[in-house]
Amino acid sequence: MKVVALAGGVGGAKLVDGLAKILSPDVFSVIVNTCDDFEYFSLRISPDVDTVCYTLADIANPETGWGRKDETWIAYHEITKLGIPNWFKIGDKDLATHLLRTTRLKEGKRLSRITDELCKGWGIKHKIFPMTDDMVRTIVKTTDGNALGFQEYFVHQACRPVVSEFDFQGAANARPVVAALDAIEDCDIVVIAPSNPWVSIDPILAVPGYKEAILKKPVVAVSPIVGGKAIKGPAAKMYEELGIQPSASAVAEHYKDFLDGFVFDNIDNNELRKIQRWRIIPLVTDIVMKNKQDRVRLAEEIVTFSETILNRSR
Amino acid sequence: MKVVALAGGVGGAKLVDGLAKILSPDVFSVIVNTCDDFEYFSLRISPDVDTVCYTLADIANPETGWGRKDETWIAYHEITKLGIPNWFKIGDKDLATHLLRTTRLKEGKRLSRITDELCKGWGIKHKIFPMTDDMVRTIVKTTDGNALGFQEYFVHQACRPVVSEFDFQGAANARPVVAALDAIEDCDIVVIAPSNPWVSIDPILAVPGYKEAILKKPVVAVSPIVGGKAIKGPAAKMYEELGIQPSASAVAEHYKDFLDGFVFDNIDNNELRKIQRWRIIPLVTDIVMKNKQDRVRLAEEIVTFSETILNRSR
Repeated sequence: MKVVALAGGVGGAKLVDGLAKILSPDVFSVIVNTCDDFEYFSLRISPDVDTVCYTLADIANPETGWGRKDETWIAYHEITKLGIPNWFKIGDKDLATHLLRTTRLKEGKRLSRITDELCKGWGIKHKIFPMTDDMVRTIVKTTDGNALGFQEYFVHQACRPVVSEFDFQGAANARPVVAALDAIEDCDIVVIAPSNPWVSIDPILAVPGYKEAILKKPVVAVSPIVGGKAIKGPAAKMYEELGIQPSASAVAEHYKDFLDGFVFDNIDNNELRKIQRWRIIPLVTDIVMKNKQDRVRLAEEIVTFSETILNRSR
Repeated sequence: MKVVALAGGVGGAKLVDGLAKILSPDVFSVIVNTCDDFEYFSLRISPDVDTVCYTLADIANPETGWGRKDETWIAYHEITKLGIPNWFKIGDKDLATHLLRTTRLKEGKRLSRITDELCKGWGIKHKIFPMTDDMVRTIVKTTDGNALGFQEYFVHQACRPVVSEFDFQGAANARPVVAALDAIEDCDIVVIAPSNPWVSIDPILAVPGYKEAILKKPVVAVSPIVGGKAIKGPAAKMYEELGIQPSASAVAEHYKDFLDGFVFDNIDNNELRKIQRWRIIPLVTDIVMKNKQDRVRLAEEIVTFSETILNRSR
């Protein structure tokens, strides 16, 4: 069975790590959101790509959910000492990533090729595709009339502003990475990782080609919402601010046009019938990944579940 | 007495530090070579400006002659681990400088203004002027027909190639920093620090305006050559390769069109008469600055010597 995952940051990265542990590089690849990408301190930063790669390479910081483990902050503190405001904390090891990426982009290399180079350096065997090599940016529109860059909203303003809308700037004219589209075409099933539907998965689907490609495939999604709360990040807050009760079923509804199977938590078992009403096949299990064993266990359950879905559709 | 120094890297920085210890910021400023500047790993690096600033701020690495003291190499090692060739070692603290400079340049700020900001952050009270805000680059032409960027020659190839000529790309069309020109106009005497005449001082003089300005002022130079050898760097090697015996008098001759006084080492006392033949007033003393006391002592001697020259010319 060939699997392609769509993923954003932390939660997505954990499931991708579990799947990568049980599926070999020739049958599993990942397409990652780049709409969070931004320029900061003259560096090009790709937060979701980095989180997925760091997690796969086992060099991610398990506490923060971003950046490297065993990180140091020498350069960051020097900038702080100069009295320069800098709200985005970049560690010294993390800096190496951004410096290399920025340098290669200046050389005219594409983000997807640079990601290959980084993955090779980190010993990652699975293919990690940034969703596009083009410039795309999530703009968070807020009820007080502001339009914030994603990291401005997410990090600098700590998700405090009330969102009203998302604008994936450049996405409609962006080109998907060809090999990523091919991977979807060649796969048996698409897994949407437990990432934020609004700002991690929707941006991928906003790039022309991806939605069309996954519509032709069985799709399984994993809920990022458990017990009405996001496991991490602002997904639940966003649902509320957009007038939708945050819940597993709200996520299923978000994807219902193309969803064949939906994986959600035991705690949300009461939503089972609602989800089944949309003819989505449910898998109710423990989806909170507290440790590396959880990742593999959940990945195994999802693979088995996917096989069931494939057998049904045959 | 108002003094302006022209300086390049290490030796120049040491004398500038001595002068800054005994002359207040309203009577002493420095114009620094930027022809060594280059882009590396997407960062704009200004080696001579940094060396002068780090030295004045007492954060320079005393062993290497470049970079910061108490430096760490976390980012550098990460890049190395990725298998990326990187011959220019940048420490984590040093990175902060280059990141800030690069960021500000991207924001459209001028190098001289950025240098002010850095100096303020480091607590440097004296004015440090990069010689120009424009893009200038020393190209080292070699006898084997190559044209090397300065850092390629200096760091990557460790000064091994035999030089035939220097090309200060962009210098003839570069504009001097206006406040630096004003500082020369307002000063009583110009001190040429013990920096490499070929690649540290000549580039400054190649920017239209500086040579004209210093021709109107008494000028004192300090020899970077002692006993036929450069105290640091490739100056002596360059003299030889250009067919000139490296010596204190060769330096004096280099500057003789505008030199009023020349400071050279006791060990080169035998060159006294030769230097006097060009009507240059000599100061023979111990010019090797081994410690911070030496810097202040030499600076004091130069200030006294400069006063003598000023009194003579009145």
